[in-house]
Amino acid sequence: MENRPVVNLGILGLGGVRLAALKHMNRNRKVLERRLGVRLKVNRIAVRDRRIKRKVRVDRDLLTEDPWEVVNDPQVQIVCELIGGTDLARELTIQALGNGKMVVTANKALLCEHGNDILEAARRSEAHIFFEASVAGGIPIIKSIREGLVANRFPTIHGIVNGTCNYILTRMQNEGKRFEIVLAEAKELGFAEADESLDVDGIDAAHKAGILTFLAHGKWIPMQEMLIDGIREVTSNDMRVADTMGYRIKHLASVVSDFERNSVFVGVYPALVPKEHILARVDGVYNAVCVSGDVVGTTVLIGRGAGQDATASAVIGDIADAVFSLRGAEMHHLPDDKNDPLLPGLPRLAVAKREEVKSAFYLRMTVRDEPGVLAAITSLMARENISIARVVQQLEEDGGGRPSKTASAVITLTTHRCSESSLSKAKRALSGLEIVLSKPFVLRIASFPN
Amino acid sequence: MENRPVVNLGILGLGGVRLAALKHMNRNRKVLERRLGVRLKVNRIAVRDRRIKRKVRVDRDLLTEDPWEVVNDPQVQIVCELIGGTDLARELTIQALGNGKMVVTANKALLCEHGNDILEAARRSEAHIFFEASVAGGIPIIKSIREGLVANRFPTIHGIVNGTCNYILTRMQNEGKRFEIVLAEAKELGFAEADESLDVDGIDAAHKAGILTFLAHGKWIPMQEMLIDGIREVTSNDMRVADTMGYRIKHLASVVSDFERNSVFVGVYPALVPKEHILARVDGVYNAVCVSGDVVGTTVLIGRGAGQDATASAVIGDIADAVFSLRGAEMHHLPDDKNDPLLPGLPRLAVAKREEVKSAFYLRMTVRDEPGVLAAITSLMARENISIARVVQQLEEDGGGRPSKTASAVITLTTHRCSESSLSKAKRALSGLEIVLSKPFVLRIASFPN
Repeated sequence: MENRPVVNLGILGLGGVRLAALKHMNRNRKVLERRLGVRLKVNRIAVRDRRIKRKVRVDRDLLTEDPWEVVNDPQVQIVCELIGGTDLARELTIQALGNGKMVVTANKALLCEHGNDILEAARRSEAHIFFEASVAGGIPIIKSIREGLVANRFPTIHGIVNGTCNYILTRMQNEGKRFEIVLAEAKELGFAEADESLDVDGIDAAHKAGILTFLAHGKWIPMQEMLIDGIREVTSNDMRVADTMGYRIKHLASVVSDFERNSVFVGVYPALVPKEHILARVDGVYNAVCVSGDVVGTTVLIGRGAGQDATASAVIGDIADAVFSLRGAEMHHLPDDKNDPLLPGLPRLAVAKREEVKSAFYLRMTVRDEPGVLAAITSLMARENISIARVVQQLEEDGGGRPSKTASAVITLTTHRCSESSLSKAKRALSGLEIVLSKPFVLRIASFPN
Repeated sequence: MENRPVVNLGILGLGGVRLAALKHMNRNRKVLERRLGVRLKVNRIAVRDRRIKRKVRVDRDLLTEDPWEVVNDPQVQIVCELIGGTDLARELTIQALGNGKMVVTANKALLCEHGNDILEAARRSEAHIFFEASVAGGIPIIKSIREGLVANRFPTIHGIVNGTCNYILTRMQNEGKRFEIVLAEAKELGFAEADESLDVDGIDAAHKAGILTFLAHGKWIPMQEMLIDGIREVTSNDMRVADTMGYRIKHLASVVSDFERNSVFVGVYPALVPKEHILARVDGVYNAVCVSGDVVGTTVLIGRGAGQDATASAVIGDIADAVFSLRGAEMHHLPDDKNDPLLPGLPRLAVAKREEVKSAFYLRMTVRDEPGVLAAITSLMARENISIARVVQQLEEDGGGRPSKTASAVITLTTHRCSESSLSKAKRALSGLEIVLSKPFVLRIASFPN
């Protein structure tokens, strides 16, 4: 056992995730080294401040405040990039790959925004980058799509990939509390960041959707071509109404392709999910990804989305793959978006046009509580050729669940499938009606293949 | 693209799964070869009868009736063993591995019964065997445990791994029909084999549990040391009673380890699963595996269990891994049960003793419908030191859902946790009571880590 070759790791950053990874690596070291056939040695760690006291015992001599020392250290074979951000992280990652090192990262923003540059750097020097921890740490989703389901093309991927959104929506659902209240409590409990916007406005989920799209279809979709909606405007009244209609409201990331049109839709948005669908039942900080493959059918993976331990598990899994790669393993080929598409000889997938993307919708608006309102709204929808499935009218609430004293009501309606562009047109027209007091709030109704 | 190296496949058997694999490989060939960086060529196919007409176009010259020609063909680099059985399959597999070929198999009986011999043959010649399709074809569970969750030890694995059992139990639940009726219909529809016993008596699930145990703990447990119960005795009345208590009845495969005692319990059995647990909601032919890892927490994977396409997807995924292995990839180490345990320096896991395994139980028995019966039963349980959680008493049904005219009743009770051996003792004592007209029927109540 002592004769096993040593593999040297360099670590960039030593915050929560990295500490957890080190701790678990040490705790399960015997099993891990046994499975890998090597000894793992941490050789160099870049930190912001060498002198800070840390919760895990670390040899001071390994610490440096210069991250370039880590990526340029000839001894280091695997670099774990966990400093976050996209500027310095990008430069360090490209330098490490350029030096022929394997890189393990959990940095989804980095990949989503600079995926092409980074993979190009890896290709040039025949190095590899591993990023299982970037999407749903507790679920081996990257490996599953890239390797386990390699036989498949993927018509649809729907996932709950942001634990903070799911935690907040679950508590709003269970406790009937308002978004702002639950958000404040989530911050106190450490389930939401001090600046919540990356999570609740959908940016984090969009980064992950970008990575899933690349894995499934070999194409990096720029953020500005995705639909990105957050959960701030969802109310617990929406949840009650959705419940009576047989739905749960979940924040979804979707990658839906239309192989006939060679187009793909990528979006993150709060959606009505049929209660009987498994995604409707994934609650709290759990993540889930529901992948439909043209050979395998539907596969659903559920696990903790983030948290130090789930991410640490994914990081260690990636270190394992990096070790094999170092020892001569060829890797499952990642597509080259620029030069070598996933489907040679076929036209590249383009981002679907708004008028091509169809969905059923849920609309909620505050209206004057007077005769003829419902007729006005439904005839407007009819003129826009949008067919209505259900309508619910309620007295408006004052936020505390009691009817408000103003002469207004809340109308909620669901539509049959129509295009995103027809719906937008109808929404604008509704906003123009004098009787409609609020801009209509729109949710999509998720549909899943059988 | 035309310059990609060619990899030659040999196929043993050409029934449903192999046909499906060939079909899908041809259909998605471009994507697959692009991902793998090679061209795949089927070089030799062993069939029982060369002259039979087949649904997929196959070059007659590739066919042979002698499977040894395939495993000894120097051109063949990857052998797909899909003939089933454990005798000839064992010899062919060992010979192929001995010849240094990679082997892909979906044969769970072969692995469960001859795992040590087969892996020994692979080690001797530095060949590898891939078996993703052997457990839950539509779920990349083998890869997830072996690679994605490599950082973890696994306190518990619970799965629904037999699609036929799950299909039958789901229909009994939904339609209130008897086991025999649903089984007959399942056979007609092709969801159960003509000889159903491998599936409904738990043998197939036990093979899969054996493979999961080996992956998680590096030990092959002989079938005779597993608890193996099938679903023949479950009634739809059990389902109704369980439902009122908050449970669904599912056929589970469980691998539960106690690292302090260095013991592991492996069993397959119908169990009461709390309705809110995700496994309670996995219905029909779907499979699911719920893995708890000491680092990652709980991960659940759900997908089609079998069927030609799900299995084909797994077989093709394995062929992909075999290709990488051929091209120099070192593989995630499989433990060597005989010589090199998963946890060097620690005592080997032993099969848990019956008295160490604890569970809550569900007992159903037919009793005389007369005063004092309930008192007699509950005092017997008290004497055996088993604490009762709930009791339901019903008039006996005649099978069609109507109360029967005999003077008997059905008593169902659930217990708090007690050891398997205490329960067995109580069960024997109950059988000895004159008022108890049927041997008590026992189900386990599943408990899951948080």
